[in-house]
Amino acid sequence: MSNSTQSSLDPRDWDAFRKLAHQALDEALGYIEGVRERPVWQPVPQTARQRLNESLPVAPTPLERVYEEFRQSILPYATGNIHPRFFGWVHGAGQPGNMIAEMMAAAMNSNCGGRDHGAIYVEKEVIEWCKQMFGFPPAAGGLLVSGSSMANLIALGTARDAAGTAVRARGVDNGKERLMAYASDETHQSVLKAMEILGLGAAGLRKVPARTDFTIDVAELRQAIRHDRAAGARPFCVVGCAGAVNTGAIDNLEDLAQLCAEEKIWFHVDGAFGGLCVLSQDLAPRVKGIERADSLAFDFHKWAHVQYDAGCVLVRDGELQRAAFSMRPDYLQHLNRGLGGGDIWPCDLGPELSRSFRALKVWFALKEHGTRRLGQAIERNCEQAQYLAKKVEAHPALELLTPCSLNIVCFRALAPGLDDAGLDKLNQEIVADLQESGVAAPSTSRVRGCLAIRVNITNHRTQFEDMDILVDAVLKAAQARRALTGP
Amino acid sequence: MSNSTQSSLDPRDWDAFRKLAHQALDEALGYIEGVRERPVWQPVPQTARQRLNESLPVAPTPLERVYEEFRQSILPYATGNIHPRFFGWVHGAGQPGNMIAEMMAAAMNSNCGGRDHGAIYVEKEVIEWCKQMFGFPPAAGGLLVSGSSMANLIALGTARDAAGTAVRARGVDNGKERLMAYASDETHQSVLKAMEILGLGAAGLRKVPARTDFTIDVAELRQAIRHDRAAGARPFCVVGCAGAVNTGAIDNLEDLAQLCAEEKIWFHVDGAFGGLCVLSQDLAPRVKGIERADSLAFDFHKWAHVQYDAGCVLVRDGELQRAAFSMRPDYLQHLNRGLGGGDIWPCDLGPELSRSFRALKVWFALKEHGTRRLGQAIERNCEQAQYLAKKVEAHPALELLTPCSLNIVCFRALAPGLDDAGLDKLNQEIVADLQESGVAAPSTSRVRGCLAIRVNITNHRTQFEDMDILVDAVLKAAQARRALTGP
Repeated sequence: MSNSTQSSLDPRDWDAFRKLAHQALDEALGYIEGVRERPVWQPVPQTARQRLNESLPVAPTPLERVYEEFRQSILPYATGNIHPRFFGWVHGAGQPGNMIAEMMAAAMNSNCGGRDHGAIYVEKEVIEWCKQMFGFPPAAGGLLVSGSSMANLIALGTARDAAGTAVRARGVDNGKERLMAYASDETHQSVLKAMEILGLGAAGLRKVPARTDFTIDVAELRQAIRHDRAAGARPFCVVGCAGAVNTGAIDNLEDLAQLCAEEKIWFHVDGAFGGLCVLSQDLAPRVKGIERADSLAFDFHKWAHVQYDAGCVLVRDGELQRAAFSMRPDYLQHLNRGLGGGDIWPCDLGPELSRSFRALKVWFALKEHGTRRLGQAIERNCEQAQYLAKKVEAHPALELLTPCSLNIVCFRALAPGLDDAGLDKLNQEIVADLQESGVAAPSTSRVRGCLAIRVNITNHRTQFEDMDILVDAVLKAAQARRALTGP
Repeated sequence: MSNSTQSSLDPRDWDAFRKLAHQALDEALGYIEGVRERPVWQPVPQTARQRLNESLPVAPTPLERVYEEFRQSILPYATGNIHPRFFGWVHGAGQPGNMIAEMMAAAMNSNCGGRDHGAIYVEKEVIEWCKQMFGFPPAAGGLLVSGSSMANLIALGTARDAAGTAVRARGVDNGKERLMAYASDETHQSVLKAMEILGLGAAGLRKVPARTDFTIDVAELRQAIRHDRAAGARPFCVVGCAGAVNTGAIDNLEDLAQLCAEEKIWFHVDGAFGGLCVLSQDLAPRVKGIERADSLAFDFHKWAHVQYDAGCVLVRDGELQRAAFSMRPDYLQHLNRGLGGGDIWPCDLGPELSRSFRALKVWFALKEHGTRRLGQAIERNCEQAQYLAKKVEAHPALELLTPCSLNIVCFRALAPGLDDAGLDKLNQEIVADLQESGVAAPSTSRVRGCLAIRVNITNHRTQFEDMDILVDAVLKAAQARRALTGP
């Protein structure tokens, strides 16, 4: 028989371990507090890459040394989204309060697939809060997931199974009657990915052209549905977009809800970042109709600044979600008492069985800040985007490529004598120059056929003066590039 | 313009925040160090449930108060798997070193969907290590996921798309030619769930009866494949099980690999917990053939004791995984430099776009302990299971229900005068009594038609004497129940 301290993976010396843990915590907190003084991002240097190219560790390494390797080769090279001038893609900035939540979740090490324990009640409470946020009924179901890609997959999977063709038992039969979903061509690609994974195929997603304001053309949508019905297909789902990734545009959700009610089609809303506009009195009218959705995907790690990852799916009729995913073999049977008790388990509502305790960080964030402060931070980002858009419009060397409708600004630097292809190349380089300089990190996209400097502001640390710094940096980078390549 | 400290979600008073964070860390470490002195599990009391039933928080709450509510209503009610006498389902115990990893991951708040930053290189290194562990070739691909349910979904999705019927574009067409997968009836239900999600349907999974040793009958499997082919279906995947959830039984993976090579069928292995037997010289021969799999699912949060959640999928031909899941719209275009650089992004290899930095805790665990110590902890659990099985066999009031082949022991308490139904009821109550007593937490299952006390040992803290405590507790609970209900 083995001696307990010798044979477990616990520290041999708890005091030394405690000391290291506190030192790491100090470093972590200093890292966050001092973020504004550091570059937004810096490339991982060759030396660090080489150190991260070892062969499989067979022998143990003292934890102090592992930590030191982490400090040198990993910690300095974060994505950058905790920095106030990270404007790439749609990343949230995280929040210090969540450090405590994540630490305690790691200590409890709960498995949130199911069973009867505290973490399950925390997730239930968080889901109830989500239902209240979005005006969903008490009978709604919901699940925390890694993000809206998973949420869209679960929502569309529920809609597919609710279409009533016994898909769980028999599988998809596209040759017989194709299930068709509809979304604007500005909709996030995770909707297409979900269709492919679910066996419905890219051919099952009808992309309806967006109007000039980047929202779905509801009249075109109605025609497409009727046309497909006439051709023998079965329209089963319309996806409304609350926050298009290039422009922040929000579909007219009320019109979509109305159309879906008339046509008896499942109404799903991808509200990955835009959905949380419900937290602001000013912005909530923009997503009116979201409360009528049959299902909804949104992320806490974006505009609620919960640490990665934390998304959510809500389904108006919780029973349909359960019917689509619940599966209980003998070893997972529900019992009346003990650990095997409890009501609906999270594993009944999605593809995952083992799940981390991500509900705790969402719970901490919503409790600490309340929806009011979170909503105010969202409003502030939208004001900052307007401020930036005005600065861009006012400057002769810059061109605003889309009207700013929410928190995203797409623009480009102009240069005399360059055609569109030349401008594309120039702006591509400007963005990479900015990122590599560490001053600011926008990303790129293409809008109206042009390569755009894309500035997304989902960042509670961003200040108005950061917009000034960004514009100056863009202009300087443009000048430097032009000096390099000649007029 | 707003003042920076006033308008962000960062603490107004960093010193107070630091103090609270260190206090929480101390509590977390004491919580782990003292786990053996606490009950394995206790039900969430009504008072705590009521406190976890508030309405949506609108106003902010001081973080100190949020933390205090957590301490009172959540922290005492963990799943229990960090305790040395948690024997339910297949849960890992976690490890203190991962506290540091999780803390630092929360500070960096990296989004591991893609782009070019440190976390991406860490995940790449971890995947390279996995390939080395399992003898996969350099061209293999892989991805960290929440667990084997997701890993099975990705693997079967890749196999489905590799079957060459243009599923991504056109969708599944079961009416035309049904894609058939094969697994023993002891295989985990997540394989069935994956088939359903992928649109292949329950009808697409042929469950081959297991033999008396709970492993798949390869001759029956061969017949089933030929029969289905003759009937016009298209066999596309065989799932081998490395560690059945009720018994720990491991299919003959070499025979399956051979069969799949002959029949030109994708060979997937669900090695959720059993796969990591490769880390032990003694146990590795049991999973021989795993290195020939086309894809493999396994979990780090089980027998490698990484904090929840952390699973992995490997695919022998990485290009097939990428072909099944990659999708790059304009705003995610790959660039040559800057943040948008890097090679294959994790989002190219599975359903998720936003992803947490779960690679860091795996990296810490493998570095700190090395595969040798992790392998030894696995061996020790198997020895403990043998020790328990012998104790059960030797006791006249206990019945061993299955031979112990790995780390799982299924047995029941006997009682004179009770038929099988009576014994089922008795043993069900014994397990709940044990859980509620806080002494030990096995779970239940059904094997060979009987309700079993199911003891799974995937726990580095478990000692041999914990087996003695468990058996004593079972016998005492049986006596107490019999005294209650009469002879």
